[in-house]
Amino acid sequence: MDDDVRGDGTAALLAYSARRSLTDAGELDDVRRWLAEVEHQAPMRVRRVSLDDLEMWETDPSTGDISHRSGGFFTVGGLRVRIPGQPVEEWWQPIIRQPEVGILGILVREEDGVLHCLMQAKAEPGNARTVQLSPTVQATRSNYTRVHGGRAVPYLEYFRDPSAHRVLVDVRQSEQGAWFHHKRNRNMVVQADSGVEVRPGFRWLPLGQVLGLLAEKDMVNMDARTVLSCLPFAREHGDPRPERRGDDPFLSALRRSCVRTEGALHSMVDVLSWITDARSRIEPRTAPAPLNALRGWRRAEGRISHESGLFFDVIGVSVEAGEREVTRWAQPMIEPHGQGVVAFLARPVDGVLHVLVHARVEAGYVDVVELAPTVQCTPQTYTHLPASARPRFLDEVLAAPAERVRFDSVLSEEGGRFYHARNRYLIVETDADPAAVEWPDFRWMPLHQLAELLRHSHYVNIQARSLVACLYGLLGADTRE
Amino acid sequence: MDDDVRGDGTAALLAYSARRSLTDAGELDDVRRWLAEVEHQAPMRVRRVSLDDLEMWETDPSTGDISHRSGGFFTVGGLRVRIPGQPVEEWWQPIIRQPEVGILGILVREEDGVLHCLMQAKAEPGNARTVQLSPTVQATRSNYTRVHGGRAVPYLEYFRDPSAHRVLVDVRQSEQGAWFHHKRNRNMVVQADSGVEVRPGFRWLPLGQVLGLLAEKDMVNMDARTVLSCLPFAREHGDPRPERRGDDPFLSALRRSCVRTEGALHSMVDVLSWITDARSRIEPRTAPAPLNALRGWRRAEGRISHESGLFFDVIGVSVEAGEREVTRWAQPMIEPHGQGVVAFLARPVDGVLHVLVHARVEAGYVDVVELAPTVQCTPQTYTHLPASARPRFLDEVLAAPAERVRFDSVLSEEGGRFYHARNRYLIVETDADPAAVEWPDFRWMPLHQLAELLRHSHYVNIQARSLVACLYGLLGADTRE
Repeated sequence: MDDDVRGDGTAALLAYSARRSLTDAGELDDVRRWLAEVEHQAPMRVRRVSLDDLEMWETDPSTGDISHRSGGFFTVGGLRVRIPGQPVEEWWQPIIRQPEVGILGILVREEDGVLHCLMQAKAEPGNARTVQLSPTVQATRSNYTRVHGGRAVPYLEYFRDPSAHRVLVDVRQSEQGAWFHHKRNRNMVVQADSGVEVRPGFRWLPLGQVLGLLAEKDMVNMDARTVLSCLPFAREHGDPRPERRGDDPFLSALRRSCVRTEGALHSMVDVLSWITDARSRIEPRTAPAPLNALRGWRRAEGRISHESGLFFDVIGVSVEAGEREVTRWAQPMIEPHGQGVVAFLARPVDGVLHVLVHARVEAGYVDVVELAPTVQCTPQTYTHLPASARPRFLDEVLAAPAERVRFDSVLSEEGGRFYHARNRYLIVETDADPAAVEWPDFRWMPLHQLAELLRHSHYVNIQARSLVACLYGLLGADTRE
Repeated sequence: MDDDVRGDGTAALLAYSARRSLTDAGELDDVRRWLAEVEHQAPMRVRRVSLDDLEMWETDPSTGDISHRSGGFFTVGGLRVRIPGQPVEEWWQPIIRQPEVGILGILVREEDGVLHCLMQAKAEPGNARTVQLSPTVQATRSNYTRVHGGRAVPYLEYFRDPSAHRVLVDVRQSEQGAWFHHKRNRNMVVQADSGVEVRPGFRWLPLGQVLGLLAEKDMVNMDARTVLSCLPFAREHGDPRPERRGDDPFLSALRRSCVRTEGALHSMVDVLSWITDARSRIEPRTAPAPLNALRGWRRAEGRISHESGLFFDVIGVSVEAGEREVTRWAQPMIEPHGQGVVAFLARPVDGVLHVLVHARVEAGYVDVVELAPTVQCTPQTYTHLPASARPRFLDEVLAAPAERVRFDSVLSEEGGRFYHARNRYLIVETDADPAAVEWPDFRWMPLHQLAELLRHSHYVNIQARSLVACLYGLLGADTRE
């Protein structure tokens, strides 16, 4: 719809920019070198410490909940979850409560017809590769309102008063519903005119390059990925570039689903009805529970763990950052056990790329279910369970022949809250007949329907959003070959 | 977008159907007679009774909260509300908690190119005119899962398994955030093939007639209005009927905004950013509070009232319905003090009808703010306050000359929970310069943007939805003149 989009071809600009990806290995080396330099100049030293020794954090003697003395940032508490009708109907777990809505914002500008992103080389204590490409602004409300002191957040002014600028994206999106309770951040993309000063630790990178770098292990952080996934690709009835003889059908279907908003196995009315049905039918009942009384969990040796050794631990870390002006702090973090697998099965349907999405319930979601990847799990959790309990499609994804694996990269989750939380992100092409492999809680959807839903909150989960960004990253793939 | 709509011209069918409104006074008399007949055949006798004497309901001795012995239906509890930065920052109030998602469904069918709705003549104890035109199905989850016994809900099968039918609307929408805590119902429109048996108390009415009857005092109930407002008007780039010489510019702008999805003062990106900003910036903090300890409220003489005499009372009613098979029950209800005013200021902008919407905070909303009418208030509440406290635009609406008042009808709110709760609904044409009268929490939006947002939950509040249905009702106005 015309008024849905900027009249000046933002979608076309995005599609064009995304296809101008890495042109040579030199560019990749250059970014690597920059990240290493920033890390060298302001190294971050992270030590695990006991939860009992976290400076400025205290454990409530009656509930065991852990919170910051200022009352800000976040709290680690407990949750009791009952979801009648689900494979596991009831459980207890620690969960992070962070009611504030933070800002994840990328400043962009157009240069020679290509969109560039002002990316930050930012260190986070939980990252396996400490310094990663991050949004221009990545700030909790406690940060940016500076209630707890601290320095001003650079470039914040572009995002605090968006109506004064050209807004491309402005939508609150959820984060991990298994670890966060009702957490959401405001995902923003704002276009600047000229005259933006580039501060140390920031660099303008072409959009296609940022998207292309998603294929690098641990290089583009989760916050950047979620913001990139919300870009208004696929808002116009654009014409895909004419096919060339020998074009890869997968890539041409991908390109098509990024520039034309038609061609879908299910109409949007039916997709929305399917989501409404799940959200009306499933009735999760969650209630806060004291962290020191969670069935199956215990706090011992300075951490909180599940008696099975599975899922995750709540640990403490102590952080020192910077060279001259040293900043020190301590905080609790979630340390998951085992690397996860996050994958879309994907295939062209009538020339338009579709992915198989899962209507997934997570305890911390604001609204019952969100659309998740085809596979999203930690395989290690299932090793002690019978084969029948294995997540659907996991084996198909893991056993896919190399030529079917269109994307395969290990990426970090939010390094400010999670310690070495990494998932292997995969996009796997399949021949599966869309009519045959649909299960009641799975649906084939074209990328442009996901893009349309991403204008609104709480439809597409954080893991699926990362994969959407990775799909946009593949737009440059055919120019690299 | 093509896949956003049924490929077979649903929007065009709706627009055509809506314009075939009442053709003569005989049709109106016919519907009036039918409602009177149903009322006569199964009269409903409603008596006010003390909250102390409500059969099957009990008051928790420690909190004062009132709930049904079965644990079903709803609870009347208390809420403490703090909304920093709002005109009134803190208050206490009774509130209805009804966590279940009920179904409000209208069955439709096409006959001679015109959509017909299967309407129910349904009595509700709170209605001033007891029997009103209601959706085909209007059922709480407690009703339709029959956990508390009771008869089967007719036509429920069309809405319980929507994927087996042709779904036109399926979206959860909120209800009064001032009286309900997080209440939502599933608004559905399902298209049937032939062969639907018409049961006693039900009748097929042409869509245009139902919409036209909104102009009749107390005839179309709130549940029917909200479902009608979600119909997929304005999903296509249709061509409005060619202008005729002497066409009323207001009505031609209305028609245009119902068939074409372009022409808007603010792009949808900017509208969504404005909503996101309000939802991120305003931080309501609500907490359950015992009903017997709400500051300013007291329970005496069998009801709960505010010491100022304003706002509303919680009362008890005893109901007897039916002639041969008599059904009896008792229940608490909310009885508001004074009739409300709910109004849109409206005007064409570049030939497309725009209305002035208000980003409104209500304590019971799921997501901070929803888009509300230009004016939504009970004037009586403000009589003891200085003129500066009067709601914005109220005086302009009330003082509008008759020829500017395009719609003016008194309609009932949900008669199952509210006792004689009526609002005067107005659509008032204005010449106000859109650039001049926008305040930070008001925006001019074309009807088609509201229609687009109505595909999703929690954007457009229940009062604004009633007015959207009334606007669709005006589509038939030019054929009546």
